[in-house]
Amino acid sequence: MNTTQHILVNGSWIDDPDHESTFSPKNPATGDAIGDVYPVSRLRTLKHIAEHAAEAAAMLNRIDPETIALFLEKHADLIDARRDVIADMAHAETGLARSPRLVETEMDRTIDQLRQAGACVRSRDWMSARIDTQHNLRSMYEPLGGGVLIIGPNNFPLAYNGAAGGDFAAAIASRNPVIAKAHPLHPGTSRLLAQCAHDAAVETGLPSGAFQFFYHCSNEDGLDLIRDVNVNALGFTGSQGAGLAMKQAADETGTPVYLELSSINPVFVLPGAMQTRGDAIAEQIAESMLAGSGQQCTCPGLIVVRSGDDAERFIDSVCAYLTSAAPQTMLSHDGRDGLQDAIAHNIEHGARCIIGGNIVDDPGAKYEHTILRVDAKRFLSDTDELQTEMFGVAAMVVVCDDAEQFERIAQTLDGQLTGTVHHEDADAGSLGRLERVLRTRVGRLIHNAVPTGVHVSPATVHGGPFPATGHPGFTAVGVPTSIHRFCALRCYDRVEQGSLPVELRDANPTGSMHRCIDGVWTTGDVGA
Amino acid sequence: MNTTQHILVNGSWIDDPDHESTFSPKNPATGDAIGDVYPVSRLRTLKHIAEHAAEAAAMLNRIDPETIALFLEKHADLIDARRDVIADMAHAETGLARSPRLVETEMDRTIDQLRQAGACVRSRDWMSARIDTQHNLRSMYEPLGGGVLIIGPNNFPLAYNGAAGGDFAAAIASRNPVIAKAHPLHPGTSRLLAQCAHDAAVETGLPSGAFQFFYHCSNEDGLDLIRDVNVNALGFTGSQGAGLAMKQAADETGTPVYLELSSINPVFVLPGAMQTRGDAIAEQIAESMLAGSGQQCTCPGLIVVRSGDDAERFIDSVCAYLTSAAPQTMLSHDGRDGLQDAIAHNIEHGARCIIGGNIVDDPGAKYEHTILRVDAKRFLSDTDELQTEMFGVAAMVVVCDDAEQFERIAQTLDGQLTGTVHHEDADAGSLGRLERVLRTRVGRLIHNAVPTGVHVSPATVHGGPFPATGHPGFTAVGVPTSIHRFCALRCYDRVEQGSLPVELRDANPTGSMHRCIDGVWTTGDVGA
Repeated sequence: MNTTQHILVNGSWIDDPDHESTFSPKNPATGDAIGDVYPVSRLRTLKHIAEHAAEAAAMLNRIDPETIALFLEKHADLIDARRDVIADMAHAETGLARSPRLVETEMDRTIDQLRQAGACVRSRDWMSARIDTQHNLRSMYEPLGGGVLIIGPNNFPLAYNGAAGGDFAAAIASRNPVIAKAHPLHPGTSRLLAQCAHDAAVETGLPSGAFQFFYHCSNEDGLDLIRDVNVNALGFTGSQGAGLAMKQAADETGTPVYLELSSINPVFVLPGAMQTRGDAIAEQIAESMLAGSGQQCTCPGLIVVRSGDDAERFIDSVCAYLTSAAPQTMLSHDGRDGLQDAIAHNIEHGARCIIGGNIVDDPGAKYEHTILRVDAKRFLSDTDELQTEMFGVAAMVVVCDDAEQFERIAQTLDGQLTGTVHHEDADAGSLGRLERVLRTRVGRLIHNAVPTGVHVSPATVHGGPFPATGHPGFTAVGVPTSIHRFCALRCYDRVEQGSLPVELRDANPTGSMHRCIDGVWTTGDVGA
Repeated sequence: MNTTQHILVNGSWIDDPDHESTFSPKNPATGDAIGDVYPVSRLRTLKHIAEHAAEAAAMLNRIDPETIALFLEKHADLIDARRDVIADMAHAETGLARSPRLVETEMDRTIDQLRQAGACVRSRDWMSARIDTQHNLRSMYEPLGGGVLIIGPNNFPLAYNGAAGGDFAAAIASRNPVIAKAHPLHPGTSRLLAQCAHDAAVETGLPSGAFQFFYHCSNEDGLDLIRDVNVNALGFTGSQGAGLAMKQAADETGTPVYLELSSINPVFVLPGAMQTRGDAIAEQIAESMLAGSGQQCTCPGLIVVRSGDDAERFIDSVCAYLTSAAPQTMLSHDGRDGLQDAIAHNIEHGARCIIGGNIVDDPGAKYEHTILRVDAKRFLSDTDELQTEMFGVAAMVVVCDDAEQFERIAQTLDGQLTGTVHHEDADAGSLGRLERVLRTRVGRLIHNAVPTGVHVSPATVHGGPFPATGHPGFTAVGVPTSIHRFCALRCYDRVEQGSLPVELRDANPTGSMHRCIDGVWTTGDVGA
């Protein structure tokens, strides 16, 4: 029998002393057990981890940002050096294509994200240092003071992993100790990434509790960990149900919580665009749906069109593209069954299945590519139920009778990560009216393109209104903005130079850091 | 009998059609009714107000910032022109000194705050516009899309008023419609300020629902208003009990909530400072306690000292200064009774009353200046109870036996708006150790000065960890930072120039707005 894998507590990989049970992941392509055995930790262990995080916080609080930058870059280098073994493991655990998806696309993004965070940390600009010389008031973003718990999703084993992804990078960039939880569908991938993080932490001399890692716990223990006094923020990417339960626990203790939950990513195809290039749009949407077997938070799940011959041809095209592609392995058999349930739910509420709608008879977790159809009147009469996310290659087409229904649909939408509009010059009038409504419902508004594929850029927003996320003012992707989620804004009032953080002293600590001195952004010293 | 005062709904002062009851404020200096009659509105009316706010939001969303700046400045001008009548009313309703407190100090701050917000809006820098030309991604802070409910406190009838204070200015600066609720202890002052806001809105052409105003409602209806789909954020300054109930309602619907609640504002006097200038510190603290009859969120309420002769002389000095000053009128008789209850609570938990501790026999709301004393061991054994805020001229002195107890006290503190340390060179070692703990417990750290008196500056932080506020990453005072609380971060992905907000188009809309183009902050155009 395999040894139970070790967890990382306060700088040491240890046999979890009193884990309550173990689990073993399955290969979703075959349904066979992968063989490794992982512990389900108890609350007592989790609380010890949180205590060590708080101890490390006191040391990390004033650590030189250069050290953090080197850590992030070393972590990126180690992942880069171990990319083949990591991609092999991720492929076995998730069923996602090894190439290009895992070993190139997602791996490159993960590495780039860590390096961007490192460069950002080094610049110190993200601290938003402000100095008022008249009153001798000085403020900046600082770490929270305790651990930050990062829980990654099932669908991006690398780029959103608690041990290497965007939330991880943002939390440690601002000098918070990170407690990372593996996703139980890819514990091995998480372990390999956590080993990179740990090795990088040792090499760059971070405090022993700066990065800690465990595999799994009961839901109840997880919620108690979130409520723990030594956990000062939570970053979670995953399902709405789990996310809202965590939000409730965090809200009880006033703990900042950043969620990236489900989204049906509406796509509106206006009549002019439909007439001019309906078939091209159909192909774009189908390809976007197929990315990652549809298991992406930005996957288009609701397609809104105007009734007529153009729309019928468009729907036929989408269906043809989808049926011409073979069903791919999904992340898990449970996920496949969840997709089946969501599709059945939407059908029960009046949507009609045009293609797909069945589990594929295969040992792997596969589901037929699915399109549902519903008319706008029906959709509008039961909009809460019919916004149920179908996490996989499945979308619902809503057919409208007039432009006003487009706006009414936009009006009824829950908060979304993205919204896409296809339009041409002929659509100018209805475009403006639609977007006056749609704009406030989505974090990222896309024109004439697809929602999948999030660029890691300072200008992106991977966020949006509740319940797509927990707060509309933040983004989970892109530095420096994602870093501010894990910061406290702190002020020094008439504090002497020697007691100030170096970034708030009169002398600019790097000669290049941007600081706002008496209302003017400058790289100079105070008084210069 | 007096006519019931009108509420401001969708641009018109109207007789509340179905108010559930009325109330009349009392003059706290005399206990006599002031005479004006105000309606307690029902949920139905509040929901109509919220609907009008949402309608206005659609128009305000893209309004020229210049119009908002002119509105804020006109509002400031109108308050300035009416300062005598406003100060008279505020004095009658709150018992605060007319001069200099109301007619100069707080009035000037209120006016300055609105003008600073106007200048900030005009610069557009607060939008944090970011443009990535490679991916044609553009993002900035935008209004939330619905109304923002602002509920001000009892203790600053002008500077934190829902119709004129910092939250009001921040919410409308980012082009959100504001729904202001008067505080029931100063409805007349609130009405006068709301009239200024309304007159300014009419004169500068804001949409009719951009600013609305009501006086009071039941707690239950208030919580339902917070849950209303058309209320997109809440700014509240007041008691912890009310604030946490509102937070819970807001959290249920994922509505961003910004609270500024109670704080006991610990003051640590280190031995070197005590020896060198104990008497001067005693005088400073006593004066800080007396400001606004101690009813300030930054009033020092916990004074931590090291045992010994110096400390005994210091305590005697504080008591002497306080007893030499006559008790002033408090904000209300209820507030006076609440102070009595809080003092009794702390005494019950082991604190000893040295001076004060009684209601003054007077028709006005007056309470004796009070000092409690407790030893550190006792304080540490019952720290949750002994952190009960005493809202008035009352503080607790904690006497420590050693330096380690200072740190342990800091460790046990709830989140605070401020923390003050008095130190001299001789205290260097213990200062560092204390502040490693204290720093993460407070929003503003003060050296050798007093916590009262918040400067309206871009570099200030009037905030702090829960439960002093609802989120450690924000400030309620200071632009542009306070504005970001009421914003959504939104992204435009491959959106054409004509459909973009002007601030994200290639051409810089003002020639002076700071935007981050491909990682470089510039006032230039894209491609320049």
